[in-house]
Amino acid sequence: MYVMAYIDLGPDESRRPGIIGLLAYRPETARPIEALVDALLVSPNPLSRGERELIAAYVSALNECTFCRNAHSAFAAAQLDAGMPLVEQVCADLDSAPVSRKLRALLRIAAAVQRDGRAVTLELITAARAEGATEIEVHDTVLIAAMFCMINRYVDGLGTLAPTDPSRYEATVPAIVAHGYATAGQAG
Amino acid sequence: MYVMAYIDLGPDESRRPGIIGLLAYRPETARPIEALVDALLVSPNPLSRGERELIAAYVSALNECTFCRNAHSAFAAAQLDAGMPLVEQVCADLDSAPVSRKLRALLRIAAAVQRDGRAVTLELITAARAEGATEIEVHDTVLIAAMFCMINRYVDGLGTLAPTDPSRYEATVPAIVAHGYATAGQAG
Repeated sequence: MYVMAYIDLGPDESRRPGIIGLLAYRPETARPIEALVDALLVSPNPLSRGERELIAAYVSALNECTFCRNAHSAFAAAQLDAGMPLVEQVCADLDSAPVSRKLRALLRIAAAVQRDGRAVTLELITAARAEGATEIEVHDTVLIAAMFCMINRYVDGLGTLAPTDPSRYEATVPAIVAHGYATAGQAG
Repeated sequence: MYVMAYIDLGPDESRRPGIIGLLAYRPETARPIEALVDALLVSPNPLSRGERELIAAYVSALNECTFCRNAHSAFAAAQLDAGMPLVEQVCADLDSAPVSRKLRALLRIAAAVQRDGRAVTLELITAARAEGATEIEVHDTVLIAAMFCMINRYVDGLGTLAPTDPSRYEATVPAIVAHGYATAGQAG
């Protein structure tokens, strides 16, 4: 069954699921969104691209945003040695997932951001710092989590299509990994 | 009592509350955030600047983000004929506030986005359309609301300062109204 989004995204909608159709619909807002996603997920950073995509996938899973969870799980899996099994373990149960103590502490901050900005406590920040997280890693974790609270709402709030077939997401991995989001036109 | 943010924003922190210090701290992410805020709140649009600032203030009030609520309430009040009393009525009780039927329907969509992207229903969209809302007005309402779910979490998730004195926010109104956010350096 083909279900249309809440607004008319044009005849190519079925080929442009999730945020892809929204970015094509409104270039004026697409360009800064793509630039922000590239700055946080692609640009050089003390956190690896795989780690940052894992934060994106985890927050999208907590928001139960099917399109973004599937997309960023694929992007994280492709850039983490432990691949998709690790991504699925983190989303299923962060406490028992085999990630570093620092990354676990940062993911706990991301989960608090997902609930409410005020849910982030000095204790969570101090715990991440005690595991070696730097100021910029804390900052970027908070902003990546907050950005996906925007993108998840944008994608689901306009009722966009979310393919269930994993191959639809995997097909976009090479372009994202090689060129980032602004070029690939898929920020979500 | 002066309380520091969760990360070290430098010696000027007390003069740069809320998002202002964060934008100065990380220019790489500040530029796209400012561009996105300008695209949604300042650029020409079928919704007036006052109406768009009202959506920003309303979502920030629902997220109980003191800095953003105070800032965007001041920006909305300065650009709406009915001023601050109307902003406060909308934040206190949307159903009884004297706004147009179209704007009320759009604010109901914004409130759904604030809760969860999946809380936006086709019924809410259809109701807004029945009051004359266009596709672009629906799109921008969803994205403005989603963007403040990011900005509110960014500001509160890093524990930034939120002045309680209204004059601190009112002082920034002329620059925002005249030049927008990218020039004024205050996207939140």
